[in-house]
Amino acid sequence: MAHLLSTSCSIKLSSGCKCYSKPLNQGLEAFPTSFTLQASKYPFRSLVSQGQKPLRNYTVRATTLPISKEAPPQPSFGTLQTSNEPSKPQRVMVIGGDGYCGWATALHLSNRGYEVAIVDSLIRRLFDHQLGIDSLTPISSIQNRLRCWKSLTGKSIELYIGDICDFEFLSETFQSFEPDAVVHFGEQRSAPYSMIDRSRAVFTQNNNVIGTLNVLFAIKEFREQCHLVKLGTMGEYGTPNIDIEEGYITITHNGRTDTLPYPKQASSFYHLSKVHDSNNIAFTCKAWGIRATDLNQGVVYGMRTDETEMHEELCNRFDYDGVFGTALNRFCVQAAVGHPLTVYGKGGQTRGYLDIRDTVQCVELAIAKPAQPGEFRVFNQFTEQFSVNELATLVTKAGEKLGLNVQTIHVPNPRVEAEEHYYNAKHTKLVELGLEPHLLSDSLLDSLLNYTVKHKDRVDTKQIMPSVSWRKIGVKPRTITA
Amino acid sequence: MAHLLSTSCSIKLSSGCKCYSKPLNQGLEAFPTSFTLQASKYPFRSLVSQGQKPLRNYTVRATTLPISKEAPPQPSFGTLQTSNEPSKPQRVMVIGGDGYCGWATALHLSNRGYEVAIVDSLIRRLFDHQLGIDSLTPISSIQNRLRCWKSLTGKSIELYIGDICDFEFLSETFQSFEPDAVVHFGEQRSAPYSMIDRSRAVFTQNNNVIGTLNVLFAIKEFREQCHLVKLGTMGEYGTPNIDIEEGYITITHNGRTDTLPYPKQASSFYHLSKVHDSNNIAFTCKAWGIRATDLNQGVVYGMRTDETEMHEELCNRFDYDGVFGTALNRFCVQAAVGHPLTVYGKGGQTRGYLDIRDTVQCVELAIAKPAQPGEFRVFNQFTEQFSVNELATLVTKAGEKLGLNVQTIHVPNPRVEAEEHYYNAKHTKLVELGLEPHLLSDSLLDSLLNYTVKHKDRVDTKQIMPSVSWRKIGVKPRTITA
Repeated sequence: MAHLLSTSCSIKLSSGCKCYSKPLNQGLEAFPTSFTLQASKYPFRSLVSQGQKPLRNYTVRATTLPISKEAPPQPSFGTLQTSNEPSKPQRVMVIGGDGYCGWATALHLSNRGYEVAIVDSLIRRLFDHQLGIDSLTPISSIQNRLRCWKSLTGKSIELYIGDICDFEFLSETFQSFEPDAVVHFGEQRSAPYSMIDRSRAVFTQNNNVIGTLNVLFAIKEFREQCHLVKLGTMGEYGTPNIDIEEGYITITHNGRTDTLPYPKQASSFYHLSKVHDSNNIAFTCKAWGIRATDLNQGVVYGMRTDETEMHEELCNRFDYDGVFGTALNRFCVQAAVGHPLTVYGKGGQTRGYLDIRDTVQCVELAIAKPAQPGEFRVFNQFTEQFSVNELATLVTKAGEKLGLNVQTIHVPNPRVEAEEHYYNAKHTKLVELGLEPHLLSDSLLDSLLNYTVKHKDRVDTKQIMPSVSWRKIGVKPRTITA
Repeated sequence: MAHLLSTSCSIKLSSGCKCYSKPLNQGLEAFPTSFTLQASKYPFRSLVSQGQKPLRNYTVRATTLPISKEAPPQPSFGTLQTSNEPSKPQRVMVIGGDGYCGWATALHLSNRGYEVAIVDSLIRRLFDHQLGIDSLTPISSIQNRLRCWKSLTGKSIELYIGDICDFEFLSETFQSFEPDAVVHFGEQRSAPYSMIDRSRAVFTQNNNVIGTLNVLFAIKEFREQCHLVKLGTMGEYGTPNIDIEEGYITITHNGRTDTLPYPKQASSFYHLSKVHDSNNIAFTCKAWGIRATDLNQGVVYGMRTDETEMHEELCNRFDYDGVFGTALNRFCVQAAVGHPLTVYGKGGQTRGYLDIRDTVQCVELAIAKPAQPGEFRVFNQFTEQFSVNELATLVTKAGEKLGLNVQTIHVPNPRVEAEEHYYNAKHTKLVELGLEPHLLSDSLLDSLLNYTVKHKDRVDTKQIMPSVSWRKIGVKPRTITA
């Protein structure tokens, strides 16, 4: 379990940033009880607010005061607020706001006028260290990211560093920030990671399920009108031989009819943890009147959003490795470095996909039009569906335009999944709310490929091949090295 | 979480019993690292094997050697084994074998010729201490129970005391006992307990889900042909407005048809933990070829089985309190002491029920005809369905025959559930395997009532009323006292 992840981590803090470092009471020991401050690899001192001196090699024992308390945030307003609609949500807590989707979402919401707080344990960065992997893009520390954002836009994003499995920490953040909405990306989000060994499987389910339970209790106790926007996954549904609906299905059986939760068939301990979450959340909506939106997201690709484009310090992470890399991102990197595209098995596996610009748009739409008290609303969050073979063909064609010789190989499928199957998943609810999709186009693929070619010197080809087997997972702790 | 449950517990051991007491590695701190031995409240020294001296006030640090290692078990055989069927399961591990259903099952299987080991942390006994509740029947220590059984029948049941959330402990038990089948009752099994406070909710889901994950990993690693017989609950289904099938439902939708997992609508953190388990087990059957039977059990009543009747030292527990008491047992106790039967809400809540003699019969049937490798088999394990009002009427009539004046009151429903609903659940698969049900009869009710009348001096009426509210559950640790 988490004890295996216990190690030291170093973060860069200015004097304005205080970390919550109380010993965890959930039996998780992923973090030390003190943090050692070091110089950043990418110092952007010009972005540090005046009066904030970077500290080095300084141990902080601290409370949950957010980074922005020193310079109070300027008044800001949600885009949909008018004088006639005073109750529109304004304050959004983004749990997991330092991650791939979370970072893009936090910036987007801040840019759109919401007051935003990021809650993150930063454990995703620790996973990189432990697995010997890295983002294709150099990413800055969360503290530097936020200083850069403030410098560019004048907008503050509050920062709470801690683990939501620690309920005392989470309570403090809720009572301090008082969110109107919580966007919950704060989970271990890789299926292969959850299948490395028993410890990672247990960690994934414990971390994800208990973290979400804690969020539900915090909402009930401290902010009962707060809207939970929870990231689920299309992988919860598996690949049934009938159309996939959005969360519910109306069944007529033996002459009677009811609308019931859509049956789930998850295919990794990670995907299962999301199913567990969905069931727990649905219950609390019914029992406590929680208002929740479950966003069953497809596979996300791309890295640029309007906000991350503003400065290289705001650059998002871009994973291409066999554990955290998503299919299209990985194919682009492979094409850029002349590595064959690695199709797992027959390649008929079909899934929903979406551009990260649509991820941030969807989350904003869900926040702006919240679920009702007691409502458990489920949206399928993707814009197009492709088989892996179709993606490989698209990347091959785009590569040829750039003069790249792109090959495709079929490698043994490390997963247990159907490789040829029916797949037709509905995804109309977010469109009805106003989603304007960025569909996968030739120009986007050109841009993604150009970007990966530009950074190809940073590619570690040893990270590309699958290193985790669904069938070979064992009970002994396993060290994955590139 | 579990740290709230951390306290000392005393158990009575003879020199032949060695407890596993290594510090837990799952962050659970429910047990001390040493045990203090005390004299039993109910000493049955005549039953202790010769050569075993009871020890007092002695601290043991120990390995997983089972109690029976000192006197090797006599050869025994499963009832269905013949010379033509050498592969019939012989060695059955009963996890949670000190509990209500587990104890009756362990004895029954031992009596039928299986070699049985009980694995139990004994935490159910700790819950009694912490909640200030007690079984109506005086129950003996597990060690004395097993000595009595050996003395009466000559059959040994091995004993492994430890927590299955501790994988090192579980590994040792698997490698030591080498089970052909695992019957898994080892979970926190009370819905009200899971709704006391946040800590108990988190404990329930962590304990049940991680414990079961560990069992799955142990089977994969050490006994891949071992058949998992897992106790689920009919409560996983909730109360849909269509017939409840056994685990799966065939759905025709938009012109296509598939057979999918039956949709689940659990209504407590406990019931949800069972849904999580079912989903996890189903995945491992598919991915690893685990063979599993999920027994979705109804509400169990009664206390006598052929085996527990052999000696008062073998007496089973009988819970009637507001946290662990099941409906019919509670009503009988209420009738016996002149307390009104407490119907929650309107009383139209309908559920499946079964006699504990059928619990042990069903488990044996499942073991004798195991699931195939990769098969996730689901049986609905109950024999009749009743509404709460119907049960109250039956107990009232039975009471009148005994001259008892039985009143019924409707108390505010502490749960969130439909109080008038359609309910028709299938339960034919176990009958097809050979189940011969003990239906709820006047004579059984007479016997149950007579029994509770006999023990009415032990009834603590303060334990009877519901003390846990689904809606009022909070984040602060709560002390429930009778």
